Amino acid sequence: MGQRPVAVIMGSQSDWDTMRHAVETLETLGVGCDVRIVSAHRTPDRMYAFAKAAKGEGIKVIIAGAGGAAHLPGMVAALTPLPVFGVPVESKALQGVDSLHSIVQMPAGIPVGTLAIGKAGATNAALLAAAVLALGDDDLADRLDAWRAARTDAVAERPS
Amino acid sequence: MGQRPVAVIMGSQSDWDTMRHAVETLETLGVGCDVRIVSAHRTPDRMYAFAKAAKGEGIKVIIAGAGGAAHLPGMVAALTPLPVFGVPVESKALQGVDSLHSIVQMPAGIPVGTLAIGKAGATNAALLAAAVLALGDDDLADRLDAWRAARTDAVAERPS
Amino acid sequence: MGQRPVAVIMGSQSDWDTMRHAVETLETLGVGCDVRIVSAHRTPDRMYAFAKAAKGEGIKVIIAGAGGAAHLPGMVAALTPLPVFGVPVESKALQGVDSLHSIVQMPAGIPVGTLAIGKAGATNAALLAAAVLALGDDDLADRLDAWRAARTDAVAERPS
Amino acid sequence: MGQRPVAVIMGSQSDWDTMRHAVETLETLGVGCDVRIVSAHRTPDRMYAFAKAAKGEGIKVIIAGAGGAAHLPGMVAALTPLPVFGVPVESKALQGVDSLHSIVQMPAGIPVGTLAIGKAGATNAALLAAAVLALGDDDLADRLDAWRAARTDAVAERPS
Amino acid sequence: MGQRPVAVIMGSQSDWDTMRHAVETLETLGVGCDVRIVSAHRTPDRMYAFAKAAKGEGIKVIIAGAGGAAHLPGMVAALTPLPVFGVPVESKALQGVDSLHSIVQMPAGIPVGTLAIGKAGATNAALLAAAVLALGDDDLADRLDAWRAARTDAVAERPS
Amino acid sequence: MGQRPVAVIMGSQSDWDTMRHAVETLETLGVGCDVRIVSAHRTPDRMYAFAKAAKGEGIKVIIAGAGGAAHLPGMVAALTPLPVFGVPVESKALQGVDSLHSIVQMPAGIPVGTLAIGKAGATNAALLAAAVLALGDDDLADRLDAWRAARTDAVAERPS
Amino acid sequence: MGQRPVAVIMGSQSDWDTMRHAVETLETLGVGCDVRIVSAHRTPDRMYAFAKAAKGEGIKVIIAGAGGAAHLPGMVAALTPLPVFGVPVESKALQGVDSLHSIVQMPAGIPVGTLAIGKAGATNAALLAAAVLALGDDDLADRLDAWRAARTDAVAERPS
Amino acid sequence: MGQRPVAVIMGSQSDWDTMRHAVETLETLGVGCDVRIVSAHRTPDRMYAFAKAAKGEGIKVIIAGAGGAAHLPGMVAALTPLPVFGVPVESKALQGVDSLHSIVQMPAGIPVGTLAIGKAGATNAALLAAAVLALGDDDLADRLDAWRAARTDAVAERPS
Repeated sequence: MGQRPVAVIMGSQSDWDTMRHAVETLETLGVGCDVRIVSAHRTPDRMYAFAKAAKGEGIKVIIAGAGGAAHLPGMVAALTPLPVFGVPVESKALQGVDSLHSIVQMPAGIPVGTLAIGKAGATNAALLAAAVLALGDDDLADRLDAWRAARTDAVAERPS
Repeated sequence: MGQRPVAVIMGSQSDWDTMRHAVETLETLGVGCDVRIVSAHRTPDRMYAFAKAAKGEGIKVIIAGAGGAAHLPGMVAALTPLPVFGVPVESKALQGVDSLHSIVQMPAGIPVGTLAIGKAGATNAALLAAAVLALGDDDLADRLDAWRAARTDAVAERPS
Repeated sequence: MGQRPVAVIMGSQSDWDTMRHAVETLETLGVGCDVRIVSAHRTPDRMYAFAKAAKGEGIKVIIAGAGGAAHLPGMVAALTPLPVFGVPVESKALQGVDSLHSIVQMPAGIPVGTLAIGKAGATNAALLAAAVLALGDDDLADRLDAWRAARTDAVAERPS
Repeated sequence: MGQRPVAVIMGSQSDWDTMRHAVETLETLGVGCDVRIVSAHRTPDRMYAFAKAAKGEGIKVIIAGAGGAAHLPGMVAALTPLPVFGVPVESKALQGVDSLHSIVQMPAGIPVGTLAIGKAGATNAALLAAAVLALGDDDLADRLDAWRAARTDAVAERPS
Repeated sequence: MGQRPVAVIMGSQSDWDTMRHAVETLETLGVGCDVRIVSAHRTPDRMYAFAKAAKGEGIKVIIAGAGGAAHLPGMVAALTPLPVFGVPVESKALQGVDSLHSIVQMPAGIPVGTLAIGKAGATNAALLAAAVLALGDDDLADRLDAWRAARTDAVAERPS
Repeated sequence: MGQRPVAVIMGSQSDWDTMRHAVETLETLGVGCDVRIVSAHRTPDRMYAFAKAAKGEGIKVIIAGAGGAAHLPGMVAALTPLPVFGVPVESKALQGVDSLHSIVQMPAGIPVGTLAIGKAGATNAALLAAAVLALGDDDLADRLDAWRAARTDAVAERPS
Repeated sequence: MGQRPVAVIMGSQSDWDTMRHAVETLETLGVGCDVRIVSAHRTPDRMYAFAKAAKGEGIKVIIAGAGGAAHLPGMVAALTPLPVFGVPVESKALQGVDSLHSIVQMPAGIPVGTLAIGKAGATNAALLAAAVLALGDDDLADRLDAWRAARTDAVAERPS
Repeated sequence: MGQRPVAVIMGSQSDWDTMRHAVETLETLGVGCDVRIVSAHRTPDRMYAFAKAAKGEGIKVIIAGAGGAAHLPGMVAALTPLPVFGVPVESKALQGVDSLHSIVQMPAGIPVGTLAIGKAGATNAALLAAAVLALGDDDLADRLDAWRAARTDAVAERPS
């Protein structure tokens, strides 16, 4: 696999506070990633160019975060054969319900594997990307198992 | 203005049952329109080509209908300076709430003037397009006034 | 076109924090506007007088913002042939869902082109009004294109 | 009190299937009513004329039913000092949630006493109007008490 | 009418921050009211006693505020022939949507005239009660007209 | 325990189509039950009498089903120390969301253990009542275990 | 009954701020409880072991709190014949609506008696558990009656 | 890869009408799959055994469909390191909103890539699984490209 098998893209700078949790999780797992701002609405040409070139550049999995009328994950999925995982960023008025609807309710033909609204979703998009890559990378599979085992061990017996 | 100043586009054949109300209303008002299926997800290249060429082809207003994760109106709006009006088509499970969220909750910078879910919204998109065109077409303004006056006259005094 | 082709109206002083984003955007684009408080509920006579006189005063497009049971955009649309764009102002308990429903779900016959809840919607109502006016004003079309191009250029490659 | 102390108004013929339950209940209780179609959107002038004249014509209570962006109850309430009770008519896509929000979420200053969505709400608007009129009409109070007692007696002990 | 024709009741001390707006509005209009805490759930016997005695004590209209599974307005309405107006108090998790559903969705037979969620609803319950009482009290009708006129006059022409 | 340790009550005859699933499940498990229509709104006195007498009559658990502004479970819970389980009956316009909110969102102090909307909830209320009774009835515990084991065995390996 | 007839479990340390209200209420009523963190997702083996052993350890009632995709209450209910009461913990983006849906909408066969979202629900889960245990413990029944009577007495006549 | 790299599991026979769209899509793409009913609630032991054995049996991707309080996808994801894709099956009362919340709102640590509610989601889960497998299978990648190209070609120019 390439040095940076995962692309983490987001619709705007304001999504970074959420999406950096995806990047940090990938780094913890030793998975290289390329991080970019790609706005479906403000930079549609950049989005087209990115999505159409992604596979050729060695990217294996795309993680896309967006909020409100969140078109980025679905549009990228329409333009690439790579698996795309979507993160609904929490929006102001509707608290991410609009983001969730815009990402998860894709029509038959163009899937976006959608994670939870907000930071948990960003972390989980990274874990899901890692699980996909681990299908062809036993070392990564081991690191992922270790990460999960450590999480399990960290659960206390009783609250404090 | 051109012979077909309005483009009515929709994401799939299944949207036609809703969107034909836009076309019929435009025809009633004597406004020419071009009707096409343009899927943001299945035919993204067609969508790009359409949206980037629309203004040059003499289109003045675009009416776009879509359901579910309805990206068509917002993506077209990102690719053209023309005014875009969006019609949320009623979806099966969420009954158009997902369509509405995906169309109306656009981020600052790329507007979609959104109408009601379903057939009323399609009819109203046509009326709004006509109202826009009527700003530069006094004959159309007169026809629109007459259409509205006839609607007012048709309201009975009492239910039956 | 008249010196103030756009009217920006709102239901109360408390909507101004949202609606000033429409006014500021119009000013940036060099589109004159008239700003008024017109309450459908507290000043219905003022609303009637405003809406019936608007076209005669040279207004081309009306932007109306309101929250809660937001009747202003729809009632004005019922009283004028001009295109009306509605901005759902975020409400306290229901966060603008009530505003959105009250504005967008207009019956067939009286359209309101509805934008997103809150400040993004106010900004976009101005952009949509400008796009409508630009159909008959090439200079404005150029300014709008420039505004959009600057927005595109301002999107950074990577988050920071 | 006048011969027809209650006005039952509705936005369109299609609301009659719901609103006739208000009329039938009033008739059962011996309360006269005047029934009219008054559309806030298609016949705004009729609405103004109706609402401003209602008190002078001897009407005591107004029952208004409407669906979708249901502006009729709130606008009438803005134009008359009489008590107004609103009935959210079930809408197609959103099943009356939009109607409910548009009627009940009135701003401070202009109340609409809102009943349940659909036929139960229409029946209850009539009962509430009767309860109001019964404050000044002991015979009606007795009839209302009898109606309620009969309803209580009609509840079976066990399901069948 | 009695010295205190309106009862303002609420389910708990915590509702007072909302319901005092009803009391203050009644006081401004010169309408006497009796204010009590009556919990449907914690003091059901008190609720029964209150509701069954209310008419005999000269109360004409009952305003009841409650939050969450808000049973107070509907239960009181089941126990008295007087008109009952309900105020959905904003709840913590669901922000009053639960309160609204519990109050407005009464079955046919027992109406509760429901106002908006929160403070606006409390104010409006008082205005609606006053409008009901004004049907038999011309002085109150004059005061209510004056209150409304002053509200209309207070709407500025432009935001500041 | 008494011969009929469970009372199954419902707000109206129309709830029987849902609530009979509770009765049938209890019968299958050999748990006696008393079935009654008790309307919080139409027969509040019957409800009071029932709830206050229930414990003395040997009832151990109360299952209450209601729809819309569903006050029956919570009001009964306010009037008895017995455990009360609530079943939100599916309503017409809001499909049981209103019923669910009215039953589950009880304030601290008066619990209602709430089951799923509709028939599954009615069945599960019976199972939960049986589980409670089984704490003091080993034979019932055995029957409940057998019922569950049979359900597990009945799950096919593959769909057909 | 055993010394600790109630188990209070929760999905993570962050649920403790909610669930401690269950523990405190049980302590006030003199009901012993065992408190543990059991994560359905991070410690599924611990959950299996806990649920399968609970009855044998003398536990009578299980209270389980969880947020978001809250699987803990339902999975424990699938693994034990004991009555399980679920507390939807308020989540960040969706404010506990997701937690509520995930807990209450169990399929026929496996009941979870669900309480209100958040702290009120935690308190009420304890009260419901106590009511269940009181069926076989007259002293506890007396303490529960006293607790409720004190709550009733604590309701002031008027707000302050 | 193994002969049946994908497992398609569902909570009950009633989910088959939805989930067969996943199986049919996999078959069309030449991807072998194993189809099983695995109920989180009725057969928790089967679920544990399945999830813990899946990787060892050569399964690469798990597709899990469930409705209501849909715990199957998330619980399986907690028990296997393989990527899990979840399909919210449309439920009766809440039309799949409960299913969606229960599947997508997983906490950080255990991801489920969630697809749309209902049949579109089932189809898309298969396509997403194929896209994942295609990362290590160029022939499958070619078949997937061809499938998508055929879908694009099948979009008519105009509605009929």
